[in-house]
Amino acid sequence: MKHFFHIVFLGLFLLGGLACNQPVQDQPVATANGEEGPRLLLTAAGVQAIRAMEGTPVIDRALHQLQTKAESAMQQKPVVPVPKDPGGGFTHEKHKANYQDALATATWYLLDGNEAAKTYCKELLLAYAQLYPTLPLHPQAKKQAPGKLFWQVLNEEVALVHFIQAYDAIAADLTAEEKQQIEEGLLLPMVVFIRDETSKTFNSIHNHGMWAVAGVGMTGLALQKAELVEQALYGTDPSGNCGFFKQIESLFSPDGYYAEGPYYQRYALMPLVLLAQALEKNQPERKVFAFRDGVILKAIETTVQMSTSGGAFFPINDAIKSKTIQTPELGIALPVWFANGGKNQALISLMESNGNLMLTDAVVGLDATPAPFQRQSVVLQDGPKGQQGGIAVLREKNAPTGLEVLFKYGTHGMGHGHFDQLGLLVYDDGRELLSDYGAARFLNVPQKEGGRYLAENKLYAQKTIAHNTLVVDQMPQHAGKVKVADAAHPWQVFEYFSDGIQAVAAADTTAYPGVALQRTVALVQAEQHTFLIDIYQARSAQTHTYDLPFHYHTQRIHLSPEVPQATALLQPLGEAQGYQYLWHLGTGEPSFTAAFTLLDQQRFFTVHTQSDQAFAVTQAAIGANDPLQNLRRENALIYRSEAQNQTWVSVMAAHGHYDAVTERTEQAYSPIANVQFQPDYAAAHLNIRIALTDGSAYTVTAYQGNSALPTKNRPFFSIEIN
Amino acid sequence: MKHFFHIVFLGLFLLGGLACNQPVQDQPVATANGEEGPRLLLTAAGVQAIRAMEGTPVIDRALHQLQTKAESAMQQKPVVPVPKDPGGGFTHEKHKANYQDALATATWYLLDGNEAAKTYCKELLLAYAQLYPTLPLHPQAKKQAPGKLFWQVLNEEVALVHFIQAYDAIAADLTAEEKQQIEEGLLLPMVVFIRDETSKTFNSIHNHGMWAVAGVGMTGLALQKAELVEQALYGTDPSGNCGFFKQIESLFSPDGYYAEGPYYQRYALMPLVLLAQALEKNQPERKVFAFRDGVILKAIETTVQMSTSGGAFFPINDAIKSKTIQTPELGIALPVWFANGGKNQALISLMESNGNLMLTDAVVGLDATPAPFQRQSVVLQDGPKGQQGGIAVLREKNAPTGLEVLFKYGTHGMGHGHFDQLGLLVYDDGRELLSDYGAARFLNVPQKEGGRYLAENKLYAQKTIAHNTLVVDQMPQHAGKVKVADAAHPWQVFEYFSDGIQAVAAADTTAYPGVALQRTVALVQAEQHTFLIDIYQARSAQTHTYDLPFHYHTQRIHLSPEVPQATALLQPLGEAQGYQYLWHLGTGEPSFTAAFTLLDQQRFFTVHTQSDQAFAVTQAAIGANDPLQNLRRENALIYRSEAQNQTWVSVMAAHGHYDAVTERTEQAYSPIANVQFQPDYAAAHLNIRIALTDGSAYTVTAYQGNSALPTKNRPFFSIEIN
Repeated sequence: MKHFFHIVFLGLFLLGGLACNQPVQDQPVATANGEEGPRLLLTAAGVQAIRAMEGTPVIDRALHQLQTKAESAMQQKPVVPVPKDPGGGFTHEKHKANYQDALATATWYLLDGNEAAKTYCKELLLAYAQLYPTLPLHPQAKKQAPGKLFWQVLNEEVALVHFIQAYDAIAADLTAEEKQQIEEGLLLPMVVFIRDETSKTFNSIHNHGMWAVAGVGMTGLALQKAELVEQALYGTDPSGNCGFFKQIESLFSPDGYYAEGPYYQRYALMPLVLLAQALEKNQPERKVFAFRDGVILKAIETTVQMSTSGGAFFPINDAIKSKTIQTPELGIALPVWFANGGKNQALISLMESNGNLMLTDAVVGLDATPAPFQRQSVVLQDGPKGQQGGIAVLREKNAPTGLEVLFKYGTHGMGHGHFDQLGLLVYDDGRELLSDYGAARFLNVPQKEGGRYLAENKLYAQKTIAHNTLVVDQMPQHAGKVKVADAAHPWQVFEYFSDGIQAVAAADTTAYPGVALQRTVALVQAEQHTFLIDIYQARSAQTHTYDLPFHYHTQRIHLSPEVPQATALLQPLGEAQGYQYLWHLGTGEPSFTAAFTLLDQQRFFTVHTQSDQAFAVTQAAIGANDPLQNLRRENALIYRSEAQNQTWVSVMAAHGHYDAVTERTEQAYSPIANVQFQPDYAAAHLNIRIALTDGSAYTVTAYQGNSALPTKNRPFFSIEIN
Repeated sequence: MKHFFHIVFLGLFLLGGLACNQPVQDQPVATANGEEGPRLLLTAAGVQAIRAMEGTPVIDRALHQLQTKAESAMQQKPVVPVPKDPGGGFTHEKHKANYQDALATATWYLLDGNEAAKTYCKELLLAYAQLYPTLPLHPQAKKQAPGKLFWQVLNEEVALVHFIQAYDAIAADLTAEEKQQIEEGLLLPMVVFIRDETSKTFNSIHNHGMWAVAGVGMTGLALQKAELVEQALYGTDPSGNCGFFKQIESLFSPDGYYAEGPYYQRYALMPLVLLAQALEKNQPERKVFAFRDGVILKAIETTVQMSTSGGAFFPINDAIKSKTIQTPELGIALPVWFANGGKNQALISLMESNGNLMLTDAVVGLDATPAPFQRQSVVLQDGPKGQQGGIAVLREKNAPTGLEVLFKYGTHGMGHGHFDQLGLLVYDDGRELLSDYGAARFLNVPQKEGGRYLAENKLYAQKTIAHNTLVVDQMPQHAGKVKVADAAHPWQVFEYFSDGIQAVAAADTTAYPGVALQRTVALVQAEQHTFLIDIYQARSAQTHTYDLPFHYHTQRIHLSPEVPQATALLQPLGEAQGYQYLWHLGTGEPSFTAAFTLLDQQRFFTVHTQSDQAFAVTQAAIGANDPLQNLRRENALIYRSEAQNQTWVSVMAAHGHYDAVTERTEQAYSPIANVQFQPDYAAAHLNIRIALTDGSAYTVTAYQGNSALPTKNRPFFSIEIN
């Protein structure tokens, strides 16, 4: 009855809308598991069920990995050094390894009953409980909010999320004294540091804040301190605009898209999912997985859809490009989606690809037959209410390793956002054709600024010229101001999916005041051809310099018209706004047409561009003004015109086959002969003719947004062969 | 008896040394199979045995591939276009596909009895028999010896090798008229063209010549024209320095190393092995596999050993870097090695990796259990008599994906040779750390000079500065003259393999007259460390400019001393001899020490260099004077001194681990603190001290070749911890 009463009591608070920072005095939290035994993610019942699932490949692999990790940790005594090094350095990596080892040994103890594993975990936590109260701020503290064990508080929050799970797993088998030492020497001091001493982060709407509330909330659930749970869920700032639920509301769109992009989405996913699962287990009455129409499960699915067929996350915004769906965060998130989202057997295949399954109660039921997982084209609305533009991923149908196109027109992405609205990324077989630079950062490489973001991240990688989108007057969008960019966003003009057509159009008038931009991207599968049609329009009452860049790092084997290339003297392309990082290889004579062909490992890719304004083609290469070689040496073609109104129509095709081992080449030339159109900026539609080398032609009609909506006979986008 | 007599008759010719161009009038050749049925590679007995091996994975896969290839070919009527296009173009690729399809359908007919396959092959050969007599030289004929079906005669020879096998497989089931049409319209005219109209190639000591004699020889065996067999085996040039056996003697060293390097070795392997197998089948009394102590089988093994743990052939000389052991040539050569070299079960694993098994009599017996194949360190003597230097591949022991080092000090390699004596290539996990550019060529890419070698191949890729070896006075070795280079070679000073040491030293006095060069390369596995020690010494009575380049294309994350880098203006590093293709990024102040660290996908690699002469570090990047972007944009560090005598000691270590998915970094810093030595050019040995960051040190003693041979106590190379 005591438990029941308490649940009702909390329910009332919820209904009434609990204000932030309103303390709930130390009343024990209701748990699903009684007073003894683990409360968070892996319960006694879960352990029993998992042991009964031995023989299931994903489970066996996870058990084996866990055993290996735990036993590897136990080979030597715990080492808990005084914090000293930045990311990638010894103490940084040791503390990271330690919190992972604590969790691995504790979980292995639960699943296997291995006493040595429990002892290892206990001694590790006790050693931290000795050290932690003595620590000042980390000596490598920089501008970012510092931690004590780590140079930034973010890592400290991640450590708490691990420590509390490890402690929860072994607490029932510790003495009262040991429990007191760990709780009062480590866990609660970390809570105080994270919640109070770095309260700005704790109450922020940001992935760092998500980790902070997860650590504090899970500590509250494990230690049965209701106050901490409330503070985690609703924050401590009187504004009320903070805490777990506010973060979910603000950071994720109704489609489960995370404002900073997929690289950070998968990172925010782990605390989101861990706290949600712990909450569901202990306070099911909160119905956390039903919150906002199930946005937490949608966020997991969206994370997966935002990866290429090769498994890498689309590297928009500040992203480390080598991050893939093997990421450990999905090892916990996928089972949670499985357990709470209808036990979809295709997720078992995904977990096999992930290979880092975390063994919690959520894996129960994985002993079904795996089904193939197919990525889909998705159009995701962005913004807390889904009204701030969006992001579209178009994928070739019936070709799981075919073309994939990402089109970005949502929110800016806060401090990690790039000024790349209406930007395009193109992939084939999971390989980059038109590429995004990602972040200028060598994650965890101590030789490179301790693994932190490099200056070139803001100065080049975030700038508009570093992306496949139009640059006006050589300035970044929104004049390069994050606050301005965060306050604005493009809008979706239409999405049109029919037969062989997948088309999305978006427009913007805020990035460059006085210039209206519209881009229409259509992946067309007609007859035996697949084309990507890209219509980029700029309209202005004033004359501007328009730069349309194409970034690539594969081998370019053809370019027309001819562009003379500096052979004996190179200078930077500009002095600021990212242009200073590009060597100016050469610029050709103005023309209305250009085409280039790339050869990636196995296929050719040709881009034909036709313009209504004459433009000059510039060849550029990253590397100027980069004395420390902080940037990769990649290439760009930049098409430049001076105009008021300007329409570029590019038709892109992946074609042929190249096999160096068997020395066979097929269709090295694009099937496209030329692209023609007559611009009429007053008309509702733009008509384009794509002539093929085999004599046939396609007629494309695309809504350009200038008058009444299209009728049934004249849809947003159509293509006909003739 | 007639056959027996004939064998003896030929045997006498052999004993007496048959002069070239001595015709043997149309006496039928002895065959192992009587007058009817296929004579070359796959006999009726072989067909029976192969069908009995169904269920063996490599056989099933090969049967399935063959069926797929044959059935895919048979989906449309044969198309035999009039030759028009260069490499990569339609007619080029079609004729290539046709000769492969002819062989596939004919072989499938033999194995499956599929009548449609036989008909397809027959119609294809008849169509060629119609076309071939009408053909002039190929319209795209360039400087290289032209063909009729193809722009170069090489492809024509390859076509004949395929056509004759296809014809042999179906001939018993053709009418006399059909046989006559094909023999007189296609096969014999091709023989005449190859043997007589391009006799210079036919009689050359060159891989093109190998293909030529294989085609003619196999035609002789299949059509029972002994004259052709003799001409193939002994050439038609009265000099006597030609034909199959002379080619084997001249092109392959006794260790089975092919003078042009592994990329061309695997290419020469196919005609070598095909003609050898056909000869062994039809004229076993020639004991072709015993020729020169079994050099043909050694050549196959050497081809495999000349590939990295990742399967790519070491790209020395003019090599296409994407060529791997999956190459079809090994699909025929590996079974021949298996059948004639003791049925080594490890070869079955290799065939599984190859994946392109050719079904001939040689595969009989493959239904054994596969065993793992381990690459070994090898020291191969070069030159026809094994007295022209050599090539060494040192591999980390007990680490199948560890460090691999190639050290080249053999013959130049004829027209495809690079001026890179004493050059070094370093790999880790099959990935290039210190890299070779390979050939400047886009094989089969029509947009790039029809897939032929580019001008930059001779002008950059072959030059000494493009390699990891010393450049004296900014000139290529042998002044860049192929004939001079072919006439000279370094010599091996010692090889020393003991305990954890694998050391090879080589010296040269011909590359730069007046300058003696010696390089000692040692892969050392001591305690828990693996080091690569590289001692490069130059001695001269005159002062020279010495440039020691390190080429790489992975990310460099550290360099000391600091080297200022041009940020706003780039110029080429030089005007000629390959230097004109390098942008000069910057040069530092002279120092005696330099170190740099690369980060490849998973590991760090640091090179510490100590010198007895002050040297300046130059950063360079490929790309100057390259208006068509024919070269890849890769990097080099160049250490330059002005001196008479000069010793560089570099200690290289792969260390740590980098995992971007789990975000873990280990040992980002090299275990080496510094390298010290006191040069004494008069002494027999050089003493080096390698100090580690953990306080320990190694003492290295290396024979530097100046006096009496080392004693047991002072071996060629030793290392001690102290």
